[in-house]
Amino acid sequence: MEKFRTETDSMGEIQVPAEHYWGAQTQRSFQNFQIGTQRFQWPSPIIRALGIVKKAAAQANEELGELPSDIAGNIMAAAEEVITGRMDSEFPLVVFQTGSGTQSNMNANEVISNRAIEMMGGERGSKKPVHPNDHVNRSQSSNDTFPTAMHIALVEELHKRLFTSVELLRKTLADKSDLYQSIVKTGRTHLQDATPLTVGQEMSGWVAQLDFAMEGIRASLPGLYDLAIGGTAVGTGLNTHPQFAMRAVHFISEITGHPFRNAPNKFFALSAHDALVQTSAALRTLAGALMKIANDVRWLASGPRCGIGEYNIPANEPGSSIMPGKVNPTQSEALTMVCAQVFGNDATVAFAGSQGNFQLNVYKPVMAHNVLESITLLADACRSFNEHCAVGIEPNLPRINENIQKNLMLVTALNRHIGYDKAARIAKKAHAEGKTLREAALELKYVSEEEFDQWVIPLEMTHPH
Amino acid sequence: MEKFRTETDSMGEIQVPAEHYWGAQTQRSFQNFQIGTQRFQWPSPIIRALGIVKKAAAQANEELGELPSDIAGNIMAAAEEVITGRMDSEFPLVVFQTGSGTQSNMNANEVISNRAIEMMGGERGSKKPVHPNDHVNRSQSSNDTFPTAMHIALVEELHKRLFTSVELLRKTLADKSDLYQSIVKTGRTHLQDATPLTVGQEMSGWVAQLDFAMEGIRASLPGLYDLAIGGTAVGTGLNTHPQFAMRAVHFISEITGHPFRNAPNKFFALSAHDALVQTSAALRTLAGALMKIANDVRWLASGPRCGIGEYNIPANEPGSSIMPGKVNPTQSEALTMVCAQVFGNDATVAFAGSQGNFQLNVYKPVMAHNVLESITLLADACRSFNEHCAVGIEPNLPRINENIQKNLMLVTALNRHIGYDKAARIAKKAHAEGKTLREAALELKYVSEEEFDQWVIPLEMTHPH
Amino acid sequence: MEKFRTETDSMGEIQVPAEHYWGAQTQRSFQNFQIGTQRFQWPSPIIRALGIVKKAAAQANEELGELPSDIAGNIMAAAEEVITGRMDSEFPLVVFQTGSGTQSNMNANEVISNRAIEMMGGERGSKKPVHPNDHVNRSQSSNDTFPTAMHIALVEELHKRLFTSVELLRKTLADKSDLYQSIVKTGRTHLQDATPLTVGQEMSGWVAQLDFAMEGIRASLPGLYDLAIGGTAVGTGLNTHPQFAMRAVHFISEITGHPFRNAPNKFFALSAHDALVQTSAALRTLAGALMKIANDVRWLASGPRCGIGEYNIPANEPGSSIMPGKVNPTQSEALTMVCAQVFGNDATVAFAGSQGNFQLNVYKPVMAHNVLESITLLADACRSFNEHCAVGIEPNLPRINENIQKNLMLVTALNRHIGYDKAARIAKKAHAEGKTLREAALELKYVSEEEFDQWVIPLEMTHPH
Amino acid sequence: MEKFRTETDSMGEIQVPAEHYWGAQTQRSFQNFQIGTQRFQWPSPIIRALGIVKKAAAQANEELGELPSDIAGNIMAAAEEVITGRMDSEFPLVVFQTGSGTQSNMNANEVISNRAIEMMGGERGSKKPVHPNDHVNRSQSSNDTFPTAMHIALVEELHKRLFTSVELLRKTLADKSDLYQSIVKTGRTHLQDATPLTVGQEMSGWVAQLDFAMEGIRASLPGLYDLAIGGTAVGTGLNTHPQFAMRAVHFISEITGHPFRNAPNKFFALSAHDALVQTSAALRTLAGALMKIANDVRWLASGPRCGIGEYNIPANEPGSSIMPGKVNPTQSEALTMVCAQVFGNDATVAFAGSQGNFQLNVYKPVMAHNVLESITLLADACRSFNEHCAVGIEPNLPRINENIQKNLMLVTALNRHIGYDKAARIAKKAHAEGKTLREAALELKYVSEEEFDQWVIPLEMTHPH
Repeated sequence: MEKFRTETDSMGEIQVPAEHYWGAQTQRSFQNFQIGTQRFQWPSPIIRALGIVKKAAAQANEELGELPSDIAGNIMAAAEEVITGRMDSEFPLVVFQTGSGTQSNMNANEVISNRAIEMMGGERGSKKPVHPNDHVNRSQSSNDTFPTAMHIALVEELHKRLFTSVELLRKTLADKSDLYQSIVKTGRTHLQDATPLTVGQEMSGWVAQLDFAMEGIRASLPGLYDLAIGGTAVGTGLNTHPQFAMRAVHFISEITGHPFRNAPNKFFALSAHDALVQTSAALRTLAGALMKIANDVRWLASGPRCGIGEYNIPANEPGSSIMPGKVNPTQSEALTMVCAQVFGNDATVAFAGSQGNFQLNVYKPVMAHNVLESITLLADACRSFNEHCAVGIEPNLPRINENIQKNLMLVTALNRHIGYDKAARIAKKAHAEGKTLREAALELKYVSEEEFDQWVIPLEMTHPH
Repeated sequence: MEKFRTETDSMGEIQVPAEHYWGAQTQRSFQNFQIGTQRFQWPSPIIRALGIVKKAAAQANEELGELPSDIAGNIMAAAEEVITGRMDSEFPLVVFQTGSGTQSNMNANEVISNRAIEMMGGERGSKKPVHPNDHVNRSQSSNDTFPTAMHIALVEELHKRLFTSVELLRKTLADKSDLYQSIVKTGRTHLQDATPLTVGQEMSGWVAQLDFAMEGIRASLPGLYDLAIGGTAVGTGLNTHPQFAMRAVHFISEITGHPFRNAPNKFFALSAHDALVQTSAALRTLAGALMKIANDVRWLASGPRCGIGEYNIPANEPGSSIMPGKVNPTQSEALTMVCAQVFGNDATVAFAGSQGNFQLNVYKPVMAHNVLESITLLADACRSFNEHCAVGIEPNLPRINENIQKNLMLVTALNRHIGYDKAARIAKKAHAEGKTLREAALELKYVSEEEFDQWVIPLEMTHPH
Repeated sequence: MEKFRTETDSMGEIQVPAEHYWGAQTQRSFQNFQIGTQRFQWPSPIIRALGIVKKAAAQANEELGELPSDIAGNIMAAAEEVITGRMDSEFPLVVFQTGSGTQSNMNANEVISNRAIEMMGGERGSKKPVHPNDHVNRSQSSNDTFPTAMHIALVEELHKRLFTSVELLRKTLADKSDLYQSIVKTGRTHLQDATPLTVGQEMSGWVAQLDFAMEGIRASLPGLYDLAIGGTAVGTGLNTHPQFAMRAVHFISEITGHPFRNAPNKFFALSAHDALVQTSAALRTLAGALMKIANDVRWLASGPRCGIGEYNIPANEPGSSIMPGKVNPTQSEALTMVCAQVFGNDATVAFAGSQGNFQLNVYKPVMAHNVLESITLLADACRSFNEHCAVGIEPNLPRINENIQKNLMLVTALNRHIGYDKAARIAKKAHAEGKTLREAALELKYVSEEEFDQWVIPLEMTHPH
Repeated sequence: MEKFRTETDSMGEIQVPAEHYWGAQTQRSFQNFQIGTQRFQWPSPIIRALGIVKKAAAQANEELGELPSDIAGNIMAAAEEVITGRMDSEFPLVVFQTGSGTQSNMNANEVISNRAIEMMGGERGSKKPVHPNDHVNRSQSSNDTFPTAMHIALVEELHKRLFTSVELLRKTLADKSDLYQSIVKTGRTHLQDATPLTVGQEMSGWVAQLDFAMEGIRASLPGLYDLAIGGTAVGTGLNTHPQFAMRAVHFISEITGHPFRNAPNKFFALSAHDALVQTSAALRTLAGALMKIANDVRWLASGPRCGIGEYNIPANEPGSSIMPGKVNPTQSEALTMVCAQVFGNDATVAFAGSQGNFQLNVYKPVMAHNVLESITLLADACRSFNEHCAVGIEPNLPRINENIQKNLMLVTALNRHIGYDKAARIAKKAHAEGKTLREAALELKYVSEEEFDQWVIPLEMTHPH
C-alpha cells in the first residue's frame, strides 16, 4: 500500500507519495495537469538542465555569500544527482502545465531541497534546513531559470546528438560524391531529361545543402548561449546579488563546456524566446534539405524495372505483405515523415513564440518540447538513414549508361556551334521520329559526323572548364 | 491640379479629392495605412458585397419604418451602383487597416451617402439629407456588416468561380477515366513497381479525390450562410429593430440568390470567424488533392526518354532558354505553386482566426483576403490546368506496354495458388538474374507453363471480380 | 540472459527474442528504425484497431470460404487478445518506419499468427499451421489494412475521448451562460470599452463556438467511416473474394459499433488520406476556438488588482517561485499550449497528405500519429480545463459594476435619439474632461436628465428587443 | 484596333501585340497562365533584377570575347532600360507560370533583344542582329539566371525598404525607452500583476527583440549573396566561359553595390533555395517580435476606462461606425494582420523549398514572390506603425501610479528579509481582505513600519543593483 507524507506550500497542505522526493507543488501540478501523460513527461535533457541551473546557482550564491556553505554544498550534491539522471523518476510532470514552467522549476527545487535535507539528516517536507524557495531557488525565479534550462538542454542536445548524426550522413555522401565523380548520368530538370552531370556532382549538391543547413543551425547557437538567469521575476533582477547572473552563467559554462553568456537584456530573455524560434527554423531548413535528399534517393532508386532505377539502395525488409519480393525505400520514407513532423513542430514553436504578453511568454514548455523533439527526431533519422541506406547507395551503371545514351538534351552542346534554334530542330526531329540525336543532326546536315562526335561528349559536358 | 473638398467626421475636418465620393474616414485610412498599396486594395467581390449589405439594410430599414422612403430609395440606388462595380474606383483602401474593416464599411457608407446626396440634389460632404452613419449605416455596425460582406463575397466567388472551374477539370478526368478503363498499366507504390491497374482506375482515384475535396468545400457553405448582420456593435443587436436582422438577411438572399441565414448567435458571429477557417481548410484539402494529381501527371509524363513516360501531355511552350527542344510540365508546376500558396494562405487564416478577444476578432480583413485569394487562385489554376494540360493527357501505349511486361509484381497473382513465400522466391530470382517472371517461375518449378499463363493475366488482375 | 529463436521472412533468417510473439519483419523494423524510440511507439488505439481489422478479416474470410474454420477461429481468438490490449507489449515499432505501415501490419500478422499457432499447439516461428501472410493477412495488403486501422482508431478515440471531454466543458459553459444571463458587463471590441452585454451573452458566444467546432468534427466522420479494406495492394482488390470488402467492413462495424462503410473508390482510399486531413483541420478549428475561450478567460481574470479582473477563476497552485501569493491562470496556459501543438500537428498532417504518389501515400503513420495526438491532447486539456478552471469561473461583481458605470460607450444608446455626431461629442467631452457621460450630456444640453436616464440603461442595451 | 506582329520560337509562330517588345515565349506564357492576373504580375524589383542579370552577363560575355562589342553594348543599353523601370509594362507575366521562371527569363531576353535590335536599326521579332537565346541569354539558362535575379531582388529590397523601416521604429522605441527610464510601473507575468519595472525597461525588451530579429535577417544575407549564375542548365556550367560566373557576379556587385559572391556549389544553387527559406524564417521571427510588441501596445493602451490603460496612443480615426467617440488601436491591428500574413507566406516558402527534385527546384517564382511580399509588407507596416502610433506612445502616469500602488507583488521585496512563506501570507491576507500590503504586513507583525517603508520601494525594485 502506497504511503504518503504531508507537504505544504502557500496553498496549504497536500499528501505526497512518501517514497518520492518531490513536494507540494509538484504534486498539485501532477494532479491538475493530466494532459498527455507519459508521452509528454519531460525527457532527461530538460531534467538534467534544471539540475545544472540549480547547481550553478548554489555555487554562485555560496561564492557571493548568499547561501551558507553547508546548505550550498548539499544543494550542489543533490543537484548533481539530478544532473546525472539518477533522479529522473522524481520528475513526473508534463509539458502541458503552467506556461512558465514554474511547476517544473519547483519540482527541481523540491526534489533537491528534500534530497539535501536528507543528506543533512533532516526530514523530507520539513523545508529545514533547506527551503525549496529560499535556498534552492535563491536569487532565481521560474521565469529566468526555466528558459535558462531550455537553452542548456537544446545546446547540449544539438551538440551531443544532432551534429554528430548529420556529420555521419554528410561524410557518407561526400565520400560517395568523390568516389563517383566521373560517372556521367542524365541530369533532370522539371523531371524531364536535361544535360548530363556526374553522380558525384549530383551528390555534391546534397552535401552542399546539408552544409548550408548546418551552418544555419550553428548560426542559431549564439541566441541559445544567451541565458535569462539573473532576470528573476520580470527581468529586473530583483532579489539577486549584482554578480549573481555572471557567476551563475560562468558555472553553467563550466559544467557544460559550452560558452554560455549573460543575456544582455533580461526583459527580452523572459518575454520572448525568439532564439528558439530561430533554432526551430534552422532545423526546419535542415528538414527541407533532408526531404529533397531522401526524395532524390527514392526516385533515383525507383523501379526496379519501371522507374528511373539509376541508383541501387539497400534492401532491408520485405516491402509488402501482399506483393512477394517487393523492396521499398523505407529509410527515405521514415526520414521524410520525420521532416514533415519537424515542419509541424516548427509551426507550433513559431506560433507559440508570437504569443508573449508584457514581461513573460507563457508558452515556454511547448516551445522547448517541440525544438527538443525536432532535434531528437532529426538526429535519429539521419543516423538511421545513413546507416541503413546512404552507406549502401550505389550507381546502377547499366541503367545510367542506357539513359545517358538516349538523352536528347545532349544537343545543348551544339548551341555554341550552330545556335539554339537549329539545335532545337535537331532535338525535336529526334524526339518525333524516335531517332538518336546523331542521326537527326546528320540528316538535318547541321553538323558533320566528326563535328558531332567532337562536340557531343557527355563527360566533357559535365566539366566544361 | 487636383481639387479638394472638406469632409468631416468625429475627429474633425479633412481634405478629400473633390472628384471622389469617399469621405473623411476613407481619406484618413487611405493616409494612415500605406501598407501593400495597390496589390492589397480590396478586389471587387468585397466591394460588391458591401454594396449588397447596404442595399439590403436600407430595404429592411425602410420596410420597418426605420428610414424614410426617399432616403432609403436613394441609398438603395447608390448601393446598386456599388454592387454593379461602377464605383470600384471609389474604394481605395487596403486589407491592412483596422481589424474590424470599419474603414471599409465607412468607405461604403460615405460613398453611398454622397452619391445618394447627389441624387437628391444635395452637396457632397454635407451629410444632408443622407448621413453616412445615421442613415446608410442605420441599424448596423462595422462589426456586423463587414463579416456579413465577407461571407457574401466568399459564397459568391465559390459559386461563380471555383465550383465551375473544378467541375471542368473533374469532367475532363472522369471522361478520360472512362475512356481508358481497359488500358492496363503498372501500378506503383512506394515509387516501386506494384500490381497492375488500368489507366482508367488510376484516374478514377483523382476524380474521387476531387469529389471528396469539393464535398468538403460544399459542407463548409452553411457556416458562410450564417450572417452576422443584426448583431451591431457587440452582438446584442443594440439600435436595431427586432425584425431587422431577419429582413436584411432576406433581402441579401434575394439579391444574391443564395440561402443566407440569420446567424443564431451573434456574439460568436462577431468574435470568431471559424466559418472562414473551415472554408480555408476545405480549400487546403482541395489544394492537397490537386498537388497529388499534378505531381502524378508530371511524374507519369516524365522523360521523354529517361523518365517514366507513361503519359503524354501537351507541349505548350519551349521549356528551356538553354536546352533546345525541351518541353516541361509547366501547368503542373503552376498548379502546384498555387497549392503551396493556398497552404500558406490557410496558415494565415487559421492563425488569425485564433486571435479573437472578447466581443471581436480584429483580423477580419486579412482572413477575408486570404480565403478570397485561395478561391481565385484555385479557380484560375484548375481552369488553366484543365485547358492547357488535362484535356490533352494521353496514355503513351508503347511505354505502358513495355513496362507492364517487365513488371515483377505480377507475381502477386500467384499468391493464392502457391503462397506468398514461394511467390517471393520467384520474384527475387527474376530480379537477381534479370529474367522474366515466367522464366523464373518455371525454373523454380512452382508452376507449369499453363498455370502461369492462366493465372498471370495483367488485365484480369485489375478487375479481379 | 535473453533467449532468442529464429524467424524467417523473404529476406532470410533473423533472431527474435524468444519471449515475444513478434516475428522476422517486426524484428527487422525494430532494428532498422531506431527513431524516436519509446516516445513514438504506437499507442494502444492503433494496436487495438489492427486487431479489429485482423479479426474482421478472418471472420469475412471464413464466411466466404477463404480460410478454414479452425485457422480463422484461432486467428480471431488471437486478434481478440490484441483488441483487448493484452498484447500491447508485443508491438514495439515506432511511427517512423515504412510509410505504408507495412511493418506494423506485419507486426500484427506475426503476433497473431504466432499466438494462433500456439493456441493450435504449433511452434512459434514455424508459420504452421497459421501463416502470417497467407492466413492472417489473407485478402489484405498493408496498403488497405493500415489505413483501415487508422480510420478505426480515430473514430473510436473521437467518440471515446474527445466528444465526452468537450461536451463536459460545453455543458459547464452553457450552464454558466444561463446562470449569468442578467449580469450586465462592459463589452470590449478592439480591446477597447464597447457597448454592454451580459456575462451570459459573453459565454454564449463561447458555447456557440464550441458547437460550431464540434459540428465540423462530426461532419468529418463520414470520411473516416469509409474504409480502404478490400483494395489490397493498389486498389484493384486483387486476391480478394468479391464479397470480402463488404463483409469485412460489416464485421468491423459490428465489433466497434460505428457505421463504417466500404469506400467507394479504393484507389483514392490508398493514395490519399484526405479524410485525415479534413479531420485534422476540424480539430484545428476546435483548437482555435479553445484558444479564444482560454484567452478570454485569462484576460477577464487578469489582475488581481491591475488587470481587468471581471472574472474570478480557481487558484490551484502557487503561481511563482519568487513572487509570494501569486496565482496564475495555469489551465488557460496549458490549454493554449495544447492548441499551439494541435496547430503544428495539423500542419504536419496537411503537408504529409499532399505528398502521395501514384497508388500510395507513404506518410500514413505520421498522419495517423498526429491526428491521434491532437485528439488525445484536446480531450485531456478540455477535461482538465473544465474541471480545474471552467467549473469555478465566477463573475467578480464589484469589478464588473465599477466598470460598467464608467463605460463611455453607453452613449451609443443615444444614437437613435440625437444622432451619431452629437453622441460622439458627448463621449469625447466626457473622456477629455474625466466626467461621466451623464454630466457631459447634460452640459452639452443634447438631452435632459429624464431623457438620459430613460435612454441609457445598460441592462436594456443588452436585450434591445 | 490592336496591331500584331509575328514572333517565332521553337514551337513555331505566334501573334504578338505590335506595340510591345516581348516575343513569342512571353506571349505563350501570357496566354497559357491566366492565373491571378494583375495581382500576381511580377513587381518591379524582380524585373529590375532580371535587367541587372542581363546587363552583367552581357558585360562579362563581352569582356571574355563571348559576344561582339556592338551586340553586347546594345544589350547592356537595353538592359539598363529594364533596370530603371522604363520597361515595366513589357513584363506582363505572373508568378504562377513555369516553376523555373523560364518564361520571365525569356521575357527579359525577348524584350532586351527586341529593344537592342531596334537600337541597331533592325526589325522586332527578326532575332537579328540580336538573338534572345544566343546573345541575350548567352552563357545562361533560366535555371541559373532566375534564382540569381531572385537573390538580387531580395537583397535590394531588404536594404532599400526593410532595414530603414525597422530602424525607424527601433529608434523611436529606443528613444522612448531612454526617456521613460525612471517611470515605475506594474510588471505583468501570466497577465497577472508582478514585480515592478520601469516603462523604459519594458520598452527596452521590445528594442532587444527587434535587434535580435534584425540580426537574424542580416545573418541570412550571405546565403542570398551566393549567386547561381554560371551554373546554366543543371549546375555544371555547360556553355559558359570558365571566367563567366566570376565576372558576371563581379558586375552584378558593381551595379548593385552589394557584395554578391559566386556560389561555390551550383548544383545546390539550382536545386534548392534554402537561402530563401532561411530569409523567410528570419522575417517570420521579425513578424513574431512585431506581434508581441503590437499586442503589448494595444493591451497597455486598452480602455479607455475599463482596460489596463497605462499607455496612451494616438487617436487617428473614428473607431466605430456605431459607437460614437470610440478610438481603436488600428495600427496595432494592421501590423498584427501583416504578421499573420508573413507567417502564412513563410509556410508557403518552406513547403515549396522542400519540393525540389534532382537538379532543379521548380517552385522558384512562388518562393521569390512570398519572400518579397513579406519584405514589402513588413517594411510598410513598420513605417506606418512607427509614424502613426509608436512616435505618439506616452505613459498614462495617473493610471500607472494608481496601479503600482495597489500591486501586491511588491511583497517580493520582503523575501530576502522574512522568507517566501511569510511574504506569501502577507500577500494573501491583503488580497483576501482588500487591504494594502503595508496594512497586512503590519497586522501580521512580520515587519515594522520602518522596515516595510525601507524595504518596499518600487523604484529600487526595478534597479536592484
